[in-house]
Amino acid sequence: MLHTITVSTHKRTEILDITSEVQKLVQESKLKEGLCLVFVPHTTAAITINENADPCVLEDILQELEKTIPFDDNYQHLEGNSAAHVKSSLMGSSISVIIENGQLKLGTWQGICFCEFDGPRTRQVWIKMIS
Amino acid sequence: MLHTITVSTHKRTEILDITSEVQKLVQESKLKEGLCLVFVPHTTAAITINENADPCVLEDILQELEKTIPFDDNYQHLEGNSAAHVKSSLMGSSISVIIENGQLKLGTWQGICFCEFDGPRTRQVWIKMIS
Amino acid sequence: MLHTITVSTHKRTEILDITSEVQKLVQESKLKEGLCLVFVPHTTAAITINENADPCVLEDILQELEKTIPFDDNYQHLEGNSAAHVKSSLMGSSISVIIENGQLKLGTWQGICFCEFDGPRTRQVWIKMIS
Repeated sequence: MLHTITVSTHKRTEILDITSEVQKLVQESKLKEGLCLVFVPHTTAAITINENADPCVLEDILQELEKTIPFDDNYQHLEGNSAAHVKSSLMGSSISVIIENGQLKLGTWQGICFCEFDGPRTRQVWIKMIS
Repeated sequence: MLHTITVSTHKRTEILDITSEVQKLVQESKLKEGLCLVFVPHTTAAITINENADPCVLEDILQELEKTIPFDDNYQHLEGNSAAHVKSSLMGSSISVIIENGQLKLGTWQGICFCEFDGPRTRQVWIKMIS
Repeated sequence: MLHTITVSTHKRTEILDITSEVQKLVQESKLKEGLCLVFVPHTTAAITINENADPCVLEDILQELEKTIPFDDNYQHLEGNSAAHVKSSLMGSSISVIIENGQLKLGTWQGICFCEFDGPRTRQVWIKMIS
């Protein structure tokens, strides 16, 4: 079965921890063992796994991406959001997490992070579990 | 079962939309629900998901990757294609897409994009579906 | 079933080929066909697929990542390892490989590469196989 999480973003670029929303869906599914795919159906957003403790880490990630892929850089695409498309592919459209004992199995400091690169917008995240 | 798509590239760096080829294999498989892994067995190519509408987006992605990881940059590897290896790991060797109702479930603007970074060459893409 | 590989790193940044360790686990599992997820439960390390022949390729990857995401760059995170966190998300927390005939199915030059970005440390890699 396919599940959807709705994420509201409030800045042009922003990283939001959605671990607890994904964890809740895994628990509700009653699936004990398997894989959880977290997929972003947008081409100017992404999903990644990174630190869930100090929010400065997520700010540093946004800063380095902005520095590496500047908002303005003689892009051909006329919508003005090419940097967001590039960042989307660099970070990736999905992550996979192991499910064990009915829970997401993440490292101590790992959180599931939704990456907005062309906000603010209302976004979707699709969750698919496989046993 | 494992499926193979052959991709012919015509430039040194190039991004090609292979969504329809993958979609065709999914439909032929008769699998109704599951996951589709699209895997590139090369270390100087990659696979990503990005915009399927304006081809300028794919050109902008290539431009930014070239700027960030220059073709010549005092590399140690003597074959002269180190930039392609770096880009390959940054973009990734596989993508996963949800299968629902016997179809790839992609966002409105998402296409499956083969990335050539050391062409022109004849390349393979492996497709594995899991229910 | 979930398997764990322990990796000892000896430098701050280092890429280690762990293909044979993963291959051994796949063979021992007796699984004939499916997918193998290789997952890194750390936020300052990563996993990628790249060349298994000339080790200079892995050195060139580390060099380009260091140049793009410098160790010192006015980061907010006070632990001093923000560059490692950024590189971790750029390279990714997991890779998926097809299992066929009881073996990992990789391209001729592909190896599974553990990426240390904040070592030296003792690290874990989790392996999950799905049929």
